[in-house]
Amino acid sequence: MQRILSAQLSAHLGRTVRLSGWVHRRRMLKSVAFLILRDAAGLAQIVVDDEATRLRLAELPEETTVSVVGTVTAQPAAPGGLEVTAPVIEALTDPAEPAPFDLYRPDLRASLPTILDHAPAALRHPKLAAVHRVGAAAVAGFRRTLDRMSFVEVHTPKIVGTATESGANVFRLDYFGRPAYLAQSPQLYKQIMVGVFERVYEVGPVFRAEPSDTARHLATYTSLDAELGFIDDHRDVVAACHATVAGMLDGVRALATPSVELLGATMPVLPAQPLVVHFADVLEMVSRATGQDVTGEPDLAPAHERWIGDWGRREHGSDFVFVEGYPTAHRAFYTHPDPDRPGYSRAIDLIFRGTELVSGGQRLHRHRDYVRVLAERGETDLSPYAGYLDAMRYGMPPHGGFAFGLERFLARLLEVPNIREVTLFPRDLHRLAP
Amino acid sequence: MQRILSAQLSAHLGRTVRLSGWVHRRRMLKSVAFLILRDAAGLAQIVVDDEATRLRLAELPEETTVSVVGTVTAQPAAPGGLEVTAPVIEALTDPAEPAPFDLYRPDLRASLPTILDHAPAALRHPKLAAVHRVGAAAVAGFRRTLDRMSFVEVHTPKIVGTATESGANVFRLDYFGRPAYLAQSPQLYKQIMVGVFERVYEVGPVFRAEPSDTARHLATYTSLDAELGFIDDHRDVVAACHATVAGMLDGVRALATPSVELLGATMPVLPAQPLVVHFADVLEMVSRATGQDVTGEPDLAPAHERWIGDWGRREHGSDFVFVEGYPTAHRAFYTHPDPDRPGYSRAIDLIFRGTELVSGGQRLHRHRDYVRVLAERGETDLSPYAGYLDAMRYGMPPHGGFAFGLERFLARLLEVPNIREVTLFPRDLHRLAP
Repeated sequence: MQRILSAQLSAHLGRTVRLSGWVHRRRMLKSVAFLILRDAAGLAQIVVDDEATRLRLAELPEETTVSVVGTVTAQPAAPGGLEVTAPVIEALTDPAEPAPFDLYRPDLRASLPTILDHAPAALRHPKLAAVHRVGAAAVAGFRRTLDRMSFVEVHTPKIVGTATESGANVFRLDYFGRPAYLAQSPQLYKQIMVGVFERVYEVGPVFRAEPSDTARHLATYTSLDAELGFIDDHRDVVAACHATVAGMLDGVRALATPSVELLGATMPVLPAQPLVVHFADVLEMVSRATGQDVTGEPDLAPAHERWIGDWGRREHGSDFVFVEGYPTAHRAFYTHPDPDRPGYSRAIDLIFRGTELVSGGQRLHRHRDYVRVLAERGETDLSPYAGYLDAMRYGMPPHGGFAFGLERFLARLLEVPNIREVTLFPRDLHRLAP
Repeated sequence: MQRILSAQLSAHLGRTVRLSGWVHRRRMLKSVAFLILRDAAGLAQIVVDDEATRLRLAELPEETTVSVVGTVTAQPAAPGGLEVTAPVIEALTDPAEPAPFDLYRPDLRASLPTILDHAPAALRHPKLAAVHRVGAAAVAGFRRTLDRMSFVEVHTPKIVGTATESGANVFRLDYFGRPAYLAQSPQLYKQIMVGVFERVYEVGPVFRAEPSDTARHLATYTSLDAELGFIDDHRDVVAACHATVAGMLDGVRALATPSVELLGATMPVLPAQPLVVHFADVLEMVSRATGQDVTGEPDLAPAHERWIGDWGRREHGSDFVFVEGYPTAHRAFYTHPDPDRPGYSRAIDLIFRGTELVSGGQRLHRHRDYVRVLAERGETDLSPYAGYLDAMRYGMPPHGGFAFGLERFLARLLEVPNIREVTLFPRDLHRLAP
């Protein structure tokens, strides 16, 4: 008999069906036993009232995989108003060993290290699984939005011959006897690919050997990257980023609303038009509000990001604030300066609920500008940049883009303090397994 | 004025428009000059007949990025029957330096090493770009098909603490002072994730430190992986794989037909029902056909794959042949044996135009089976498999899956002999840049 999912029970009322899944929970009462079966679609209640089946069920601990054939019966007291009666239960594998925690409880009662050590089991908890359903929906929304805007998906190298972006924090590997490095971002390659497709995106792993042991840092995460050519300035990047974030939230709403509800998360407010503030105005507002002059600061401190996040929410009802015009000297070498405002750039960040989510902006596109800024930053050997500089040498359009970590997006969306809670199998200073 | 793309000209006949793109080709005739502009959508012909603009154009070498404002005019002799007249041409950057090859010729006349050394420029050639448009379309089709079948996308670790799958061919890296390895495949993680979502897929890089210097091997490629639970046997995997390949071909047809046509490629025939042959029958048929007894062989040699590929085409009109039942001893440890046929397994390969494209099959799902096969293969220390074995220990369904390289799929689809020709920035024994 063809298997159906728990969510399809109502279409089969009165009929005999086969369900398959995990023994989520057994409740052995005096006269009756309940089996709560978990499958990809949710939970189903199965009622056992004959002694032989009850004995059978007693031998099948939680998490054992089973197949159940029974009759779909109306039962107002059951979840969804339906249960399966007169079941025949067949185990699909040996009885499961007891997991280190009870997966059937509404919340997983274990410390974060225990959860991470036992991720293969812990991720089965409906709330932990829900996090990653939200993640998959967000990524689907990211791609769908960019596909509609004629971006082309690319897959760029994760092993590179030279460490270009920020020398110290790269993982070094042995590449057939030569040194090589894990790519910290697809930045240079996505710019190169603007020369080919005008608009590109990539979803893939990036690697940061930052020895930071914080709730926000991972040694590797999933980066969502986009880059587009023939822009007028960074405001075109803001528009593309705003549309993309809107598409991701739409994706979550369309594909993962039950997961958002299970997690008790509140969907953020993104206004129809992006809310954009200049970096200098942020510092000015913070100075005025706090009575402390921070207008000379070269970057936004976390407290400033929180302040502007609160301001966006309070004054404009928005959980997202784009900050434009960061001082050029504190951004990456490829940052395009603001020609009208010396010292400031066309770099942007997107602050989501008081934390930086996205970094981006307009990039330089003239070959001679690259040669100049690399020299200014003390890069005397340009050979590591050869392919990248070639792209500029052979004619590039004005372009820009943005990037952010999927896990950081999920942490802010679901308002989870530690990024490890929203990462399938996190890698950090101490953790390499499972 | 808002920019339009070359493909949108016909909607603007008689009107003034702005086009932006690359100087693809200039032809300076006596009385008139032509500028062929290339943008993401194709080519547009721009006619220059005033002297000042002609002089301006003479200063803008091929590949310079420009913006052109002019009038859309009917011209039966022009490509698409339209050209842009009375143009004002503005350069968007400095004049481009001459590329190492002419990008405007119908085919890129350069050796493969030259093309790969200068990939940032070479990929702009419409035929090279077309390859990667086909790739993006195929991946979109892969995801769309699996999304419809309720698979959940996952992102599993690329850095692992232990080399589990085939010890020798792994890249080793320095992970904060400890040894770590680049994942050769998401195999163990996707099986673990079947325990969470039942059905999962991943598109991501895999890393193989194989010192093979062939036209088929790369040190890293984009792997398309899927895994599904609650199967009856490997035939459910065949069905899922068949549907996925069909979806990829549909994706290419829907999203990249102009690229396929530009490349002169022939779309392969995939029959509505998968064509499946048993491994033993393949060797039997090959033996009969060639007069050479190969029935005792433990695996299919490339010549056997070619033979069965030809057979599928000849006898069944199919470019795809699923081979099932490979001898268990020659497959990975997690391979599920065929309970009805000792020595043979429930492993499958998909032969596409005479070359192995996909590997997969049903996996073991009982914890004790894993402990046994790992012991039989001489694995005495099971700690590297701890998380994986936990997934089995805590109850897994019968499951299976499949995997293949995007680049190998493209090479066979487009009938290109060297996989480097269908990889954006290939990495091999010798190449780490660009």
